[in-house]
Amino acid sequence: MVSIGVGILGGGTVGGALATRLLTEQDAIAAKSGLTLELRHLAVRDPGKPRPYVFPPNLMTTVPEEVVDDPEVDLVVELMGGLEPAAGLVMRALQAGKPVVTANKELMATTGAELLEEAGRRGVSLLFEAAVGGAIPIIRPLSESLAGERITEVLGIVNGTTNFILTRMCQQATTFREALAEAQSLGYAETDPTADVSGADAAAKAAILASLAFGTWVGRDMVHTEGIESLDVADIGFAADLGYVPKLLAIASETGTGIAVRVHPTLVPVGHPLASVSGSQNAIYLRGPGVDELLFAGPGAGGGPTATAVLGDIIEVARELLAGAPAPPRVRLAPAGLRPVAELETSWYLRLEVVDRAGVLARIAGAFGDLGVSIESMVQIGRGETATLIFVTHPSPESGSRRAIEALSGLDVVRQVAAAIRVLIA
Amino acid sequence: MVSIGVGILGGGTVGGALATRLLTEQDAIAAKSGLTLELRHLAVRDPGKPRPYVFPPNLMTTVPEEVVDDPEVDLVVELMGGLEPAAGLVMRALQAGKPVVTANKELMATTGAELLEEAGRRGVSLLFEAAVGGAIPIIRPLSESLAGERITEVLGIVNGTTNFILTRMCQQATTFREALAEAQSLGYAETDPTADVSGADAAAKAAILASLAFGTWVGRDMVHTEGIESLDVADIGFAADLGYVPKLLAIASETGTGIAVRVHPTLVPVGHPLASVSGSQNAIYLRGPGVDELLFAGPGAGGGPTATAVLGDIIEVARELLAGAPAPPRVRLAPAGLRPVAELETSWYLRLEVVDRAGVLARIAGAFGDLGVSIESMVQIGRGETATLIFVTHPSPESGSRRAIEALSGLDVVRQVAAAIRVLIA
Repeated sequence: MVSIGVGILGGGTVGGALATRLLTEQDAIAAKSGLTLELRHLAVRDPGKPRPYVFPPNLMTTVPEEVVDDPEVDLVVELMGGLEPAAGLVMRALQAGKPVVTANKELMATTGAELLEEAGRRGVSLLFEAAVGGAIPIIRPLSESLAGERITEVLGIVNGTTNFILTRMCQQATTFREALAEAQSLGYAETDPTADVSGADAAAKAAILASLAFGTWVGRDMVHTEGIESLDVADIGFAADLGYVPKLLAIASETGTGIAVRVHPTLVPVGHPLASVSGSQNAIYLRGPGVDELLFAGPGAGGGPTATAVLGDIIEVARELLAGAPAPPRVRLAPAGLRPVAELETSWYLRLEVVDRAGVLARIAGAFGDLGVSIESMVQIGRGETATLIFVTHPSPESGSRRAIEALSGLDVVRQVAAAIRVLIA
Repeated sequence: MVSIGVGILGGGTVGGALATRLLTEQDAIAAKSGLTLELRHLAVRDPGKPRPYVFPPNLMTTVPEEVVDDPEVDLVVELMGGLEPAAGLVMRALQAGKPVVTANKELMATTGAELLEEAGRRGVSLLFEAAVGGAIPIIRPLSESLAGERITEVLGIVNGTTNFILTRMCQQATTFREALAEAQSLGYAETDPTADVSGADAAAKAAILASLAFGTWVGRDMVHTEGIESLDVADIGFAADLGYVPKLLAIASETGTGIAVRVHPTLVPVGHPLASVSGSQNAIYLRGPGVDELLFAGPGAGGGPTATAVLGDIIEVARELLAGAPAPPRVRLAPAGLRPVAELETSWYLRLEVVDRAGVLARIAGAFGDLGVSIESMVQIGRGETATLIFVTHPSPESGSRRAIEALSGLDVVRQVAAAIRVLIA
């Protein structure tokens, strides 16, 4: 049995969990995989920081380049997160002919095309199973198992923080602020929750999923992104009465005239497999003519799950190193024909505060009709000086729906369009 | 772009679907994967049989050896099913240094160890993603993504026919015979349904799942197997009242002193992720300390889904062939320490028809207690000359439960133990 030298960049939650497992589970990993994985170098920011496991001091360095350049390190694991210095270090490893495993969604969604190209040129692997969905195997299934499927749609709950917040808002009728505070106190949300609640984290993952599902390069900045900050708990209650559950969905679809990729709050029918994915769980649902529909669900984050995904990639790379083979290219990224969200068919939940008098509904229906948006259902909530009307529209071009929302806001009988949330078209 | 020659053994549902896709979707596959896959030879039993797609006659042969030996065939796809001649043909291909893709669960669960060893010796791949769960990617996730996870338990609904029958029995209160007849008329069950309803098909899949999850060789004949033929629809109703749904589960677990693998009808609590997997759907649920829990769900059979899984394997093998690399070994199968089911902790649903008089419950409770089986709940259904008692037992060694069931049958106050079904220990 030959041993493979592993170098890790980053000693945070995931890096620490992975390094601990490499040191304490070496025999179990060897028994199952037939490989001895040896942790040879670990780059951390602060070697003095107290950690759950005490690493031998001679393994640690504060200079990540030392890990990459160490001739004893056969493969480099990047777990620092963020764009720089991670991108430079990963490129440096690849250029030295060392395979790389990373969990860095931001890196892959921003510079993935270049990095994968460099890996292909050098005949080494760049694996990133942990970048989306934590422990849920989705990168490998998309790029290998489903390589022959013409996937038509990928829907993902890929951010555990927002799914936890939305679940709390649904189940306990708490406001966004209260649910966020609870998520923070339980460690599900950061002190600065912007990356999660704004949808930016989900957008990076949506870009990666879309790239792999459709074999085209979709960068993070090409993803139309809306967050959950402005969701009103009142709408969650009204939507529940109509049979919907709110989810922050990453949606990548083949429209026939290009791929559309977006992240936004979406009302999901209760019967849909994604509707019951609750708390901090993640899930990816996809459709295609061959497979019909597939669902993958599990924990989307955390040291343990992410370390398992990284370890699977490490073992695969180690097997390739031992076979002495150039790594076969797994991912092919043609330039994407992206379709703007404005051109998509979307369906909307709209809450209007209106003047409660005869003829109002006719005025509103007329405004919808003028812009080619037809109404699937309407419910009036309460009566009095001001009434609340909830509309769900039939699918129609997003641009028309946006113009209708604007036109409605301008009507004298409409006090305000209090909420506008897209509904999943099943 | 180089082209890879594909030879297919078997022109049935899956072989036909795959051959059709190779011929009609060549450009789409090439655009997504960067590979040109060329169908060069197809072995069928009856070239004259009418098929949904007309294959060029020069591609077809009735002599499968011609496909294997064809120098234009770079990789062999075995879709004949059954043990022979499939096993001999797969071995012949491997020995000629040709990689093989198969969907044959029986083959892999019976001779998988030898075939994988031969493939390893020749440095070629033997892939079998389609052998379990149809289009659900589970083989690759188990052997690669989760290679570093100490999986503790795999639970699978891996037979669509029985899941369809059980779903009908639950939702429409039809008997097993009626539900089977419906499954047959819809094409979900064969004219001779034995392999499905006896659990044999699920047992082969359980053996494969266990082998990959635990990195040990588990053959199909090592799987304790019970079918669904004797399930009474009355028990399905009583179990529903207690909060359970019946499923035919493949269960592979690490017990601490060995691996136990079994297939039997199991009452699953309604809140469990597998409880809502209905109709002909398949799903695999697994647990481990790193990943917590993962669920994979989708269509478990059919030409389209299975062809997609096979195509994924073909593309992976083709990439390896183009990289000119010996295939890295993906699976390691140490000899298994198997634990007999009799030693496992199991929990039971028992329906007893008893004489309805004072003191009966004390006698029955005494019989349970004497054999160390404790009762979690008891419900009496109806009163009169004969009463029905439903017991759910706490987990205890299976051997003790079996002795208790025997002892109960021998009590003069017990007319019969009318049903005994294991309950999932969550």
